Amino acid sequence: MNILFIMYDQLRFDYLSCAGHPHLQTPNFDRVAAMGVRFTNTYVQSPICGASRMCFYTGRYASSHGAQWNGFPLRVGEQTLGDHLRKLGMGCWLIGKTHMKADAEGMARLGLAPDSEIGARQAECGFDAWIRDDGLWAYGPDGYYDEKRSPYNEYLKQKGYDGENPWADYANAGITDDQIASGWMFRNADQPANIREEDSETPWLTSETIAFMDQTKAPWCAHVSFIKPHWPYIVPAPYHNMFGKNHVPAATRHPAEREDAHPVYGAYMENKIAVAFQREEVREKVIPAYMGLIKQCDDQLGRLLDHLEATDALKDTMIVLTSDHGDYLGDHWLGEKDLFHEPSVKIPLIIYDPRSTADSTCGTTCDALVESIDLAATFVEAAGGTVPDHIIEGRSLLPWLQGHTPDWRQYAISEYDYSATPQAAKLGVAPRDARLFMVFDGRFKLMHAEGGFRPMLFDLQTDPDEFHDLAKGDAHQDKVDRLYDYLAQWGRRMSQRVTRSDQDILNMRGKSIRRGILPFLYDGTEVDDELTEKYRGPVRQRFSAEDEAP
Amino acid sequence: MNILFIMYDQLRFDYLSCAGHPHLQTPNFDRVAAMGVRFTNTYVQSPICGASRMCFYTGRYASSHGAQWNGFPLRVGEQTLGDHLRKLGMGCWLIGKTHMKADAEGMARLGLAPDSEIGARQAECGFDAWIRDDGLWAYGPDGYYDEKRSPYNEYLKQKGYDGENPWADYANAGITDDQIASGWMFRNADQPANIREEDSETPWLTSETIAFMDQTKAPWCAHVSFIKPHWPYIVPAPYHNMFGKNHVPAATRHPAEREDAHPVYGAYMENKIAVAFQREEVREKVIPAYMGLIKQCDDQLGRLLDHLEATDALKDTMIVLTSDHGDYLGDHWLGEKDLFHEPSVKIPLIIYDPRSTADSTCGTTCDALVESIDLAATFVEAAGGTVPDHIIEGRSLLPWLQGHTPDWRQYAISEYDYSATPQAAKLGVAPRDARLFMVFDGRFKLMHAEGGFRPMLFDLQTDPDEFHDLAKGDAHQDKVDRLYDYLAQWGRRMSQRVTRSDQDILNMRGKSIRRGILPFLYDGTEVDDELTEKYRGPVRQRFSAEDEAP
Repeated sequence: MNILFIMYDQLRFDYLSCAGHPHLQTPNFDRVAAMGVRFTNTYVQSPICGASRMCFYTGRYASSHGAQWNGFPLRVGEQTLGDHLRKLGMGCWLIGKTHMKADAEGMARLGLAPDSEIGARQAECGFDAWIRDDGLWAYGPDGYYDEKRSPYNEYLKQKGYDGENPWADYANAGITDDQIASGWMFRNADQPANIREEDSETPWLTSETIAFMDQTKAPWCAHVSFIKPHWPYIVPAPYHNMFGKNHVPAATRHPAEREDAHPVYGAYMENKIAVAFQREEVREKVIPAYMGLIKQCDDQLGRLLDHLEATDALKDTMIVLTSDHGDYLGDHWLGEKDLFHEPSVKIPLIIYDPRSTADSTCGTTCDALVESIDLAATFVEAAGGTVPDHIIEGRSLLPWLQGHTPDWRQYAISEYDYSATPQAAKLGVAPRDARLFMVFDGRFKLMHAEGGFRPMLFDLQTDPDEFHDLAKGDAHQDKVDRLYDYLAQWGRRMSQRVTRSDQDILNMRGKSIRRGILPFLYDGTEVDDELTEKYRGPVRQRFSAEDEAP
Repeated sequence: MNILFIMYDQLRFDYLSCAGHPHLQTPNFDRVAAMGVRFTNTYVQSPICGASRMCFYTGRYASSHGAQWNGFPLRVGEQTLGDHLRKLGMGCWLIGKTHMKADAEGMARLGLAPDSEIGARQAECGFDAWIRDDGLWAYGPDGYYDEKRSPYNEYLKQKGYDGENPWADYANAGITDDQIASGWMFRNADQPANIREEDSETPWLTSETIAFMDQTKAPWCAHVSFIKPHWPYIVPAPYHNMFGKNHVPAATRHPAEREDAHPVYGAYMENKIAVAFQREEVREKVIPAYMGLIKQCDDQLGRLLDHLEATDALKDTMIVLTSDHGDYLGDHWLGEKDLFHEPSVKIPLIIYDPRSTADSTCGTTCDALVESIDLAATFVEAAGGTVPDHIIEGRSLLPWLQGHTPDWRQYAISEYDYSATPQAAKLGVAPRDARLFMVFDGRFKLMHAEGGFRPMLFDLQTDPDEFHDLAKGDAHQDKVDRLYDYLAQWGRRMSQRVTRSDQDILNMRGKSIRRGILPFLYDGTEVDDELTEKYRGPVRQRFSAEDEAP
């Protein structure tokens, strides 16, 4: 079996027709959902691209792998999907974005050459790169945000798009008055991107994926990782005007949220992107473009599915559709992601397992509390392995896919490290204290902030929109305490004992005694003679001073 | 300045005359104490050789580095003293024991050859090995406990001691009735070891240390790491009969400890070594030998100090005397170490800083709550560096040595992983739950055991002997809660963000905006023109479908 592990970037859980979106039809997402299981309670372990992805790829919490924000390198030696799957004979490939920064200092310290196979895999998050393009070719007075090479820009140049950065000038810009109308400016979000639709990012990566599938020896796991619908919010025709103002839902927000807001939440509500999304004209420009981008993703997914069908490969390809986090889009007075409200931390997850063992769940939904780290475990098990649970902290979803009801976690954890952000500066929080934790038990959601702040608490049963912070009074101290107990338990988890499995340890028990470690004998009669045999025998030479004395 | 970092193995904090031992005179330890500071509240981060040492060498908690028990490999890439000190131009050497197991699997995964310089340092815990000898050449029906080469055994053979394992047959055995009387059997602990005193382990390693100092280019940090007074408890003449029954203190134990004992403590009280040490004749044999071993260590320390004096090196050598954990010796009905009573988890620590900045504290004691991981930080600072506190979790002791009173930690943490022991099997505890945590605030000491057990609590002010477990009732729930809060706080510590320092993060703040990441613009007027310059300009080519339409 192959695994087609498709990730969209910044795709909200609720912007799919199978998830109930009132205006956006996504028949191809729905087609996979109809063949598989849609997991309706799936949470990322950090609502930010880089950190979230490192959780997906390692199967470990952000605090466990340490790459807790964009651009924090994943330390050398940290094991990823590639390490686990290749051991099982499955290739592990990257097509698209990872947002992984290599630990160049660590690699140098260990003498790993970036151009060796091992070095390259370390630098590519464990993947063999079919094509890596992180999709954000922003540039400014200090240069490119991402200094790597952009295969997508190379593709565009080859196709006749001119200039240094056609990603910015064509794929992510329209035209106004003969001027480049950059997608970086929300005002332009309703313009068609000045690019042939088939050359835009999502079709380009889809074509690469089809080429990959046609040319690569099975079994493989392919991480197909689209940059869209992530900003810049702009999409080529005909997607740019498929949706309009009348398709923009009212923002999920409430004046109560601004009253005595938690200081960290308050700082986020005042940041530039939040302030922008608090303007209705921004939402009315952006959301139709966002929907258009998703519609394009859906159409391109259709291309992939059709190709799988045409090559008779659907029957041995597991398909996974997910996202690295959501997008506030003005909900809760916020833009972007970062915090733990549902539009940010909850993701879509649809898994189609082609095997007959999963037939019974075909077309169902599952509301188990799923963490994104569960996918790494799922893939290892799908590839025929046993989950190395001393390394991978997630849990295989195969039992759910097979219609079982395994004992399951009581709570999901997410983390956010905002140490490098203006909000930390504004709050005067030291880098090591600028960390947030979410604990969600399926009903109550606690946010803990290091640095002496009070927590936040929401009851998603009585307040599904998360407007009312119950931690403001002490009427709900019992829930706060319970969720803090979960967080404490999680904090004590065994996350770094990665060089010994539980089975290794069981095998060690009692072994040292047969290798002569016997620090409990009075005279040796306590154990079988065999164990002390090496310590007995006639004296061969005398050196003892006692004996040398006259 | 050089650093002479001397570790004894299993040396109790209270078996020194400067620490008040009533019978054992240790004038050379006292001599260093008189030149420096004796830290009277120093705790190891895990009371077991291997794990404790990995904490010393990495400056990190056991849960952070993951090598949580003897023989659990320290994972490849984990940074140690050698990484930190060599960057500062200081060599970092090993003379003796580390009890470190290399992560051979991880090294192979990263393609590190064990015989390369980088590979060898990975395998030697970051040290350059002047001589490595882990000091436990036990052997039994299944072979050697330690399959490495033993330089000490090679030395003995060269000196004419015959057989496969003269460490066992001579250095750690006496003679009874012309038979080898192994030091593994407590009955033989009062025999003189059948070896010339100068060939025994402590003098041998001391001679190696002197040779090292004479031949090595400064500045260096030398980890001189003696196996003694660790078992087998046997010592050559004249040390074997310097102490007798009358020097053996009554065991610090109380019948109350056996009443409704905590299940984990109860299991330890029933293990083979505890049962042995509950016999008075074992204590009467072992403790005089243990004292003789320490007396020999003290004499050999005198040799080192005399050599430093003779070579005028005292003035630029920092001297550190410590141990990796203690020894119950029958206290609390236990033998060995493992748990968190003072005789096990508390260690001696004496630091002499030759610089004039430390003159004011010369000959004093300091009762700050010190953790063994503080030494790594101390050494980095002593070598002129800034402590990389995103990696090293300990704190420099230099302020204390210089007579300052820095803001200091509120609690010390220690951990114990007993997953590979018979106690875990007996209690039916899964490997991942067989973990204990100590939280000590200087007065109250909590032991938390994973796996659903109750905690233990001692008040060292009213009950310095730790006889009365206050967690049995709920009269002290407030203290239990407070210490659990500390443990939870510690559990959330930032321990794996090792690829980015706080300063790196402060330097990152606000940088992406100047690299074109601007996801908050409505029309571009929000920022200086410079920031959007790359996103503007005349359209050069038209691809937009809108424009192509007739």
